[in-house]
Formats: sequence, structure tokens, C-alpha cells
Amino acid sequence: MPTEREAAAFEAGIKLGALYHQFVGSPVSAETAESLEVAMEESISLQPHVRSVSVKIDREMLTKNVYGYGELSGKMIRALVEIDLDGAVVRAKLEYDPKIDYPLMSLLD
Amino acid sequence: MPTEREAAAFEAGIKLGALYHQFVGSPVSAETAESLEVAMEESISLQPHVRSVSVKIDREMLTKNVYGYGELSGKMIRALVEIDLDGAVVRAKLEYDPKIDYPLMSLLD
Amino acid sequence: MPTEREAAAFEAGIKLGALYHQFVGSPVSAETAESLEVAMEESISLQPHVRSVSVKIDREMLTKNVYGYGELSGKMIRALVEIDLDGAVVRAKLEYDPKIDYPLMSLLD
Amino acid sequence: MPTEREAAAFEAGIKLGALYHQFVGSPVSAETAESLEVAMEESISLQPHVRSVSVKIDREMLTKNVYGYGELSGKMIRALVEIDLDGAVVRAKLEYDPKIDYPLMSLLD
Repeated sequence: MPTEREAAAFEAGIKLGALYHQFVGSPVSAETAESLEVAMEESISLQPHVRSVSVKIDREMLTKNVYGYGELSGKMIRALVEIDLDGAVVRAKLEYDPKIDYPLMSLLD
Repeated sequence: MPTEREAAAFEAGIKLGALYHQFVGSPVSAETAESLEVAMEESISLQPHVRSVSVKIDREMLTKNVYGYGELSGKMIRALVEIDLDGAVVRAKLEYDPKIDYPLMSLLD
Repeated sequence: MPTEREAAAFEAGIKLGALYHQFVGSPVSAETAESLEVAMEESISLQPHVRSVSVKIDREMLTKNVYGYGELSGKMIRALVEIDLDGAVVRAKLEYDPKIDYPLMSLLD
Repeated sequence: MPTEREAAAFEAGIKLGALYHQFVGSPVSAETAESLEVAMEESISLQPHVRSVSVKIDREMLTKNVYGYGELSGKMIRALVEIDLDGAVVRAKLEYDPKIDYPLMSLLD
């Protein structure tokens, strides 16, 4: 049987996978990044066993196309989720890792 | 060659198709519907030739699952987009049509 | 520090969250369900530490709208992912649970 | 009132907007691009008034991250849709335009 902490880690993974694949591709600019951050946070906060979600879109990574906007990509997202599954608390993050040029999801200690 | 109005109608379709398929599936509740509406409006407003976008999520259609939230479906969305393509102005909407039980997109006169 | 099994459970969650939120909302019918299943399996199989992914769309849940097709919803998806993270093997599934009317994700023993 | 051709152009826009925002963000590689193309074609073909959809993912644009795969972006997609709305036939495409570095959607003559 999975432990409580394994189950909580699983839940944390679900939230980050959902956050990423629901919203990547959304048109975004420096002017609209905040409303997208708030929607992402509030939306994922509804999922089961979430204690908190914070999302930050990296403005410096926001490039502008010829029409003056960009698109949300995984590398722009810094997200932290905290899961509380019957007392088993687990935190995980999504953060661009420049060493491997990848939007890495990882459990925190 | 397409007329200016045909091209503007095409642009209106792009915006509604994008709005729908980018955000359907997002967790949502009565408490978070507003932030999702704002993000949807601001995001799609960035796309080319958009004069305005308004989005309303039907709270009465928001059902709660066992965990107390729902998911955005096309039938819940009422959206109006206004396109201005070099002076050719076209308006279109997405609105649930109960007669055919379908989230219908249509051009307005 | 997270254990290897916790990290593997986290990875399993990511895959199911991604699978769900990337593809929910796709137009689908009994005739096209198989190509969507294959694309979902092959796409998610690319993610790190995946040993296998299987996806089945429940044909009996596929309803037809007035235009003769439906949309992929979470409740229609039965998915099994197997993660191998440096030898820590974890399996997880997404499966509709009729008792709570919810597309439940869970770790397997 | 919109003309039949304006309505057909609107439908074409919907299909390309849907195609783009439903599938952008999907993990993809040279090995899996074909199954994703087929799923995209079959899925969007179900939508109302579609006569045909063809999708090609540009293999040369498929970059590999540290884990050996990439993600579908709009610039990689070449899509052609043909709409037949009560005899008004309209064709439209999505194709990367290198001059403006943008995944451009446009009506064809």
C-alpha cells in the first residue's frame, strides 16, 4: 500500500501537471500576466487536498510577437503547491532549470 | 480573394475557438469564476484585430462534484468578441443554445 | 528529503494531471476515439521516467450532440501509467468512480 | 445579416483556433508526431461543417529537451481546413510565416 506521504506527493504531481497543461498556450503579455496568475492559482486551488497554490509568470521571459503579445510556455511558470492529505503535508514546485533548459517539477523537502 | 468582412469573420471564429479550447476543463467554482472570466477576457484580447472580448460563466450551470468544485465546460460560457480588421467590424458570440443543447458560436448582424 | 517512491509517485501524478488537462475538451466520437487514445498514450509516454501509459476512452460514455459528436471529458478516460524512477516503480490510474461520480486518480499498490 | 461565405469563414476560424489551443503544449517527438497529427485531424473533422482537415507537424522544428522530446507549439503546425456550409466552401490554413515569425492563420482564395 502507498504511504500517506506517497499519496500526498502523487496529489502534488497531479496539480502541477494540470496547471501546466491546462494553461500553456494561453496568450499573455506583461499587462495580462497577473490576471492569468490569479486564475491559475484559484483554479488549481479547487482541486482536492490543496492547501495553497502560488503562480508567478516570469515577465523577463515574456517575449512579444509581431502583434505585441506572447504565449504562456512552461519555462515561464514558477509555481508552488502545498498538499495536505490527512495531515501528510507535501510541497512541490515547477521552476525553470537553466542548467538543463527545462521546466522542472520537483518535490521540496 | 476573401472580402474584408470574410476575413474579419474568420478572425472572430479563431478567437472563439481559442477561448473555448484553451480554457475548457479548468477547475472552477462560483467563488473562482470571476478570476477565470477576467483571465479569459484579457488573454483573448491580446490576439490580433480584437476590439473587445467579454466572457461570462453561467453560475447556475456550475455544478459541484464531491470535492465541491466543477469544471469549465463549453455550455457554461457566454462570450462576445468584437473584431476590427482594418475597419471591417464583426461581432460574434458563443452561447449555449438550449433548443439543440449545444454551445453555439455564431456571427451577429 | 523525499524518498525514491515519493518522487516516483509525484511523477505519476504529473503524468495523469497532464494527460487529463491537455486532452479534455477534444472533439471525439466512437469513430475517432482510437486515434485520440493512441495520441494520448504516445504523447505522455515521452515524459520523463515513464515506463508505460495506456489510455482507454469509454465508448458507452460517449454521447452525441446535435452534430453527431461529443467531447472528451475526464469521466470517459481510463488511464494507467507506470513510472520507473531509478528503480522505484509506481503505478497509478485515472478511472471514473461511480460511487462519488468523479474521475478519480489513485496510486496502485 | 452575415453572408454564407462570411459564416463559412467564421466556421473555418473556429476550427483553426480550436486545433491550435486544444493541442499546443502536447509532448511530441519525431516518433510520435504522426499519431498526434492523426488525432488532431480526426478530432477537428468532427466539428460542424468540416469537409476536410489536414495537419502536418514540422519535424525540423521539433527540438529535443534534455529528456529527448519536445512540445507542440503553434509554429510547428501546418494545417488546412475546408468548410462547406450549405454549399459555401471556404478553405483556410495555419502556417508559420518566417517573415513575421508567427503562426499565421489565413483564408485561402
